[in-house]
Amino acid sequence: MRIAFQGTSGAYSEGAAQRAWPGIETVACEQFEHVFASVAEGRTSHGLLPIENSIGGSIHRNYDLLLEHDLPIVAETELQVVHHLVALPGTEISQIRRVCSHPQALAQCESFLRSLSNVEIVATYDTAGSARLIQEQNLTDTAAVASARAAEIFGLSVLKAAIQDYRDNITRFLLIARDPQPLGQPDKTSLVFALPNSAGALFKALSVFALRDIDLTKLESRPMRGRPWEYLFYVDLAAGRADVRCGRAIVHLAESARWVKTLGSYARWSEAAMRPFGAEASMDVSTV
Amino acid sequence: MRIAFQGTSGAYSEGAAQRAWPGIETVACEQFEHVFASVAEGRTSHGLLPIENSIGGSIHRNYDLLLEHDLPIVAETELQVVHHLVALPGTEISQIRRVCSHPQALAQCESFLRSLSNVEIVATYDTAGSARLIQEQNLTDTAAVASARAAEIFGLSVLKAAIQDYRDNITRFLLIARDPQPLGQPDKTSLVFALPNSAGALFKALSVFALRDIDLTKLESRPMRGRPWEYLFYVDLAAGRADVRCGRAIVHLAESARWVKTLGSYARWSEAAMRPFGAEASMDVSTV
Repeated sequence: MRIAFQGTSGAYSEGAAQRAWPGIETVACEQFEHVFASVAEGRTSHGLLPIENSIGGSIHRNYDLLLEHDLPIVAETELQVVHHLVALPGTEISQIRRVCSHPQALAQCESFLRSLSNVEIVATYDTAGSARLIQEQNLTDTAAVASARAAEIFGLSVLKAAIQDYRDNITRFLLIARDPQPLGQPDKTSLVFALPNSAGALFKALSVFALRDIDLTKLESRPMRGRPWEYLFYVDLAAGRADVRCGRAIVHLAESARWVKTLGSYARWSEAAMRPFGAEASMDVSTV
Repeated sequence: MRIAFQGTSGAYSEGAAQRAWPGIETVACEQFEHVFASVAEGRTSHGLLPIENSIGGSIHRNYDLLLEHDLPIVAETELQVVHHLVALPGTEISQIRRVCSHPQALAQCESFLRSLSNVEIVATYDTAGSARLIQEQNLTDTAAVASARAAEIFGLSVLKAAIQDYRDNITRFLLIARDPQPLGQPDKTSLVFALPNSAGALFKALSVFALRDIDLTKLESRPMRGRPWEYLFYVDLAAGRADVRCGRAIVHLAESARWVKTLGSYARWSEAAMRPFGAEASMDVSTV
């Protein structure tokens, strides 16, 4: 089993994959598009994508890419994000003139970063990549905001630990594959649909779930390209695709929606349900 | 009338302000927070904030800040975004080794940027600020993705015009003020509300608008800080606050929502309705 992720070794996505499915092999990709390509072309069996963060919100690029590709979601996982200020060993905080990281990570550590004086904040494409840059270029005046794992991998020290503004900083990830074979028993389904531009259209769409007592765990709107101020809606339902209510709701939705696409049906993630990868892969696929 | 905006002179926000309300004075602010502070502290009468883009989606930071501050929305406006590749006069495209701009602008020009070879793409905090940097540091190997106005202001040439991937690239802006005195006749209202974490809660909330034939022009969910996987909902209603249906719907919503906050009631923007600032400010405030 090989899981593609976006970023450099030491990225949060890689950490999430290794924690949820211990022993799997991970493959670093430069961009989210490459994660999709890697799975589509069979170079990896799976790809792991961050989809939302409890502070920053959705990673919209991945919602867009899920729609563009036909790679079903087969599992989800979550990771507690703990950002550290990391630098070359022996560096003092007073020597730091530049802090670099991904804009999301920088935003999540805003209070701490504002407390530093005479420091330039630099947005990069990558948390772990910023740590690597410091090692590769031997930057003694630069720190990165990155994970403890990234610091370890690139031989950096933690100057200041747990610098994020909020403790409850959790990222949710989706696992995609070529085959819609879920790991575990699906009790959650992700859909995307487009609605006619008429009054009450969204209300009618949501009625197909409410009338069947299906809970929505997430609703996200995204602009439709080429149609300013029209939206696509991404929803997560607390019901597996094999649940008869779910199937009926989707058929009902299709009556009024312009179109509906199922992005996948998968098991809701829980710490308790964590199992070795192989064990999960062989479970309960008959129900899907 | 003084309007604060985020960015450097030549920013799209400044262009939108000057186009919608000709003759007003604009004040550059480094961050969105500073725009809010400028209005709250009376240094400017208004602030203009980008809130969504027809390609990239919502600017979530501003949704969060609207909630944190008590500065009502008094108007909206839209601007067609046209990105150019700009550089020092005399620079050839083949000399360019680095392209810098705001990540949103870079993302909106992805196809074009991928067509360049041996070029590093650098994320910055600002489109116009990237243009200024090229001028200030006389960077002959660097180009920026910025507006024609930014190129003009910083003495740069357009190397390649209209490089954005999609033609229908429009940004919507909200004008905030200390006093809830709208410019023009309000026919649109923005709300934010939190719901109990129960099945069908969002459906019930939307029913208060659907049952009164009030159209939603936008629905956006944002994570609640400190409550992972619970959300706030931001909605735009196609009805002014003085519309009796709107008032009743908000009272009805308050029955089931944990809380509701009105962010402002204002006139839906249209090209046709563009008037000098002073003229709009004196119109129809009696109806609000």
